[in-house]
Amino acid sequence: MFLKNCWYMAAWNHELIDGKLLARTILEEPMLLYRGESGRVVALDNRCCHRGAKLSNGRMEGDDIRCMYHGLKFDPAGKCIQIPGQDNIPKGLGVRSYPVVEKQGIVWVWMGEAAKADASLILDIEYLQNPKWRGVPDYMHYKADYRLIVDNLSDFAHLAFVHTKTLGGSEEYAYKSKPLAIERLDDGFRVERWHMNAPMPPFLNKFWRGVSHVDRRNIGRMYVPGIFFLESLFAPAGLGLEKGNREGAKEYRNCQFFTPETRKSTHFFWNYLHDHDLDDPTIALSLRDSMVAGFMEDKFIIEGQQEMLDADPDFKFHGIVSDAPLAHFRRTLQKRIDEEMNPPEKLKAVS
Amino acid sequence: MFLKNCWYMAAWNHELIDGKLLARTILEEPMLLYRGESGRVVALDNRCCHRGAKLSNGRMEGDDIRCMYHGLKFDPAGKCIQIPGQDNIPKGLGVRSYPVVEKQGIVWVWMGEAAKADASLILDIEYLQNPKWRGVPDYMHYKADYRLIVDNLSDFAHLAFVHTKTLGGSEEYAYKSKPLAIERLDDGFRVERWHMNAPMPPFLNKFWRGVSHVDRRNIGRMYVPGIFFLESLFAPAGLGLEKGNREGAKEYRNCQFFTPETRKSTHFFWNYLHDHDLDDPTIALSLRDSMVAGFMEDKFIIEGQQEMLDADPDFKFHGIVSDAPLAHFRRTLQKRIDEEMNPPEKLKAVS
Amino acid sequence: MFLKNCWYMAAWNHELIDGKLLARTILEEPMLLYRGESGRVVALDNRCCHRGAKLSNGRMEGDDIRCMYHGLKFDPAGKCIQIPGQDNIPKGLGVRSYPVVEKQGIVWVWMGEAAKADASLILDIEYLQNPKWRGVPDYMHYKADYRLIVDNLSDFAHLAFVHTKTLGGSEEYAYKSKPLAIERLDDGFRVERWHMNAPMPPFLNKFWRGVSHVDRRNIGRMYVPGIFFLESLFAPAGLGLEKGNREGAKEYRNCQFFTPETRKSTHFFWNYLHDHDLDDPTIALSLRDSMVAGFMEDKFIIEGQQEMLDADPDFKFHGIVSDAPLAHFRRTLQKRIDEEMNPPEKLKAVS
Repeated sequence: MFLKNCWYMAAWNHELIDGKLLARTILEEPMLLYRGESGRVVALDNRCCHRGAKLSNGRMEGDDIRCMYHGLKFDPAGKCIQIPGQDNIPKGLGVRSYPVVEKQGIVWVWMGEAAKADASLILDIEYLQNPKWRGVPDYMHYKADYRLIVDNLSDFAHLAFVHTKTLGGSEEYAYKSKPLAIERLDDGFRVERWHMNAPMPPFLNKFWRGVSHVDRRNIGRMYVPGIFFLESLFAPAGLGLEKGNREGAKEYRNCQFFTPETRKSTHFFWNYLHDHDLDDPTIALSLRDSMVAGFMEDKFIIEGQQEMLDADPDFKFHGIVSDAPLAHFRRTLQKRIDEEMNPPEKLKAVS
Repeated sequence: MFLKNCWYMAAWNHELIDGKLLARTILEEPMLLYRGESGRVVALDNRCCHRGAKLSNGRMEGDDIRCMYHGLKFDPAGKCIQIPGQDNIPKGLGVRSYPVVEKQGIVWVWMGEAAKADASLILDIEYLQNPKWRGVPDYMHYKADYRLIVDNLSDFAHLAFVHTKTLGGSEEYAYKSKPLAIERLDDGFRVERWHMNAPMPPFLNKFWRGVSHVDRRNIGRMYVPGIFFLESLFAPAGLGLEKGNREGAKEYRNCQFFTPETRKSTHFFWNYLHDHDLDDPTIALSLRDSMVAGFMEDKFIIEGQQEMLDADPDFKFHGIVSDAPLAHFRRTLQKRIDEEMNPPEKLKAVS
Repeated sequence: MFLKNCWYMAAWNHELIDGKLLARTILEEPMLLYRGESGRVVALDNRCCHRGAKLSNGRMEGDDIRCMYHGLKFDPAGKCIQIPGQDNIPKGLGVRSYPVVEKQGIVWVWMGEAAKADASLILDIEYLQNPKWRGVPDYMHYKADYRLIVDNLSDFAHLAFVHTKTLGGSEEYAYKSKPLAIERLDDGFRVERWHMNAPMPPFLNKFWRGVSHVDRRNIGRMYVPGIFFLESLFAPAGLGLEKGNREGAKEYRNCQFFTPETRKSTHFFWNYLHDHDLDDPTIALSLRDSMVAGFMEDKFIIEGQQEMLDADPDFKFHGIVSDAPLAHFRRTLQKRIDEEMNPPEKLKAVS
């Protein structure tokens, strides 16, 4: 169903300020996330091992958490360290704890076998903490299979129809621009797409005035299980951006994370950053609001899509040429999941 | 489950004005209905064949519809006629289209094999467009199996108890009047019922003043799969209506259509027309409001019935004498469904 | 699933005043409860045997009930005694009636075989109608398995954590007090617990001023299938309550009834009575409000627990020492249910 042995974004670090006990279901597992008093982030099964009460209704004590039903207390490793009115604590009593790493403002959790958790596998997203970039991290909840959101971002042609008046700018994007290159990779894909002499898209026109047409380059990079980076470069049309002339150009970085909540709902995190006018805080807010407007357009389409799929589980997709990246991605993801469920060592043991 | 090879009312034609893209589920199939620019009505599967997005979130172009996810365009026959950014369109790519006929203000769709769709099978409801009659078409949504609504109309005795203060007038209707004749027909039934010297029912008393008692004749005709016509005739009591004296009489026509949305929900369309005071538009509005009040009484009872049936799928109905029409109707309907699922030619092939 | 051959509280008698037709689902069976004109209480299947319409949408006539769909009338034994427009009533036509007993303000129903209903099995709760006690009966609906509520009351340690600021008073209750005695009984358990020199609990402090610390004795008695009595005794600390000195003591009686609505929802009835200041009606209201506040704390925890169990039906409880009463109770209840489903006579027949 889900790929387990990998890192998923569980939260932005600012979601854990002020002692917040954050209950968040990830891969259909109810989880409690909090920052202990020492500053470390803790990720535990949200169910007290005693009677299943929610630990998120509990109380933080130092780096520990106390269930406020009968008072059992757990340390950050999930080990039960106190039972009020009982002196002996059975060995092994506790709740599952998840490997957790905080990096560049992101709280990552490992959903599979703890022994395989390797922090070096976490992607490096350098610009999130580079002062040359500025953005506002945000979150949106989707009532849809996360793979439908991955699909959406795997074909920029939808910009033309879904986002004509927000992020796109004109329908000709779908007809006149094509991916220059699609790289099928072991862990996803990379797509590069140019659109020359395109009308200035509305979301940039809000603060970038006096330029009617731009040359636009998008480079998209999708990673298993559902992480997407988009590098966008814009310059006034006709100055030679395609030949490397950066005159008047502006750059943007968009990182997006799709973490399954359940089979049919998704946590969607993102940050859209810009590299210009860094002393003007309204630019980042304007871009954030434009993204929200655009993502709401996606959400409307995609949640409708989910309703249609629910109405008939036998409905079959019909591929078109521009599905190549998403088709590759789904194959890659499924291959990983299959390997995880039937690892080579297990196969050997059988034969 | 449902009878497929027959015409169902899908909409009143006024529901498709102003370019409305009407999403309506019929027999558990999500459908898009719209009137193209040429004036023809189109009925298509509401799911784009590409990724299942809702075509009702799309854009009408002439008589065609464009999916506003990736821009695929479909003609009224459901054929895909454009894929932005792709020159070749695979043969056969498209969505299901439903045979559709507009007649007398009603949009009819055929849910079964298109080859069997025969417009001559559509009922002729002459009075809907006859200037001697006036009414206001309306719609109500039911959270109940459409057969429970058919049941309701198969026994006028419910008028006495459900509609005492609205459409009925007195409980004696249930005790003193009986069906004069019940005709069991291949496609439904016909019932005639007289109630002599009955108190004027409240819904007529609103505009028909000064008459305390009436003779009342109801002729009901129910058709498979769920279409009901009620002809009502009222005259001041004792003038000899039963002998053919029409002095002071007023007539009404009520056509009602029960189209399954799902197994447990129904589209209910109706129009209640009168033949008198045709230059007074308030009569039709008064009757419409009285019907809404009465139908809300039915809806309250029937949706409660559905809840009870849901609570225990093993609950068994116990017949009473006045169930004869509904029992005949359910048998007739089930026979048609069985024949459709096991047609004679198929049975031969097996033996 | 449920224990059937026993008495369940179905309602407070005041819920049936003014001719109320009370629809209430008990053990997943939809029931109609009403007080007939003669004063007797009637409990019937809420589904008309004809077409399943709700009898609670009907009309009381004397001690009988008329379905207001087609007018069938039923007597208190559930026998159909009239079908409008039909002279013959088939023998045996009717709806199930439930044995019902009204005692001490409580309406009790028997959910199993009627022949086994024995009113002498109904618990005697003398103080409910003893003028030496005063209280306000109340009701709360729970979205949780009734056994989770029984669990809750089987361990007073939760007072310390769930109700610190309402019914409890301090967390030390969990650490310093232990059950003095746990009696495992055939029909439940009895627990006695003392807490000496404890801070005055907030809910008593509202009207019992000037005493900072109390000695507190709680005696709890739980009965199958889910009835709980709590006798509480408080006195100013240090006067010798434990040696029998009742100087300055106040007593309270709390009776609580957990009647399953469905597998995952519960009717919770209770009355908390006091033995002092009986001429002051505000004491009972204050205690009622304090109980509501405390029970809402339980409800929050327990409904959260139910959500967690729903999220993973394989979740296993891990026992702690203080679970002894609840573990005994669950075994006792399950044993009764097993015996009911496989009675000795049935087992003999098999062997």
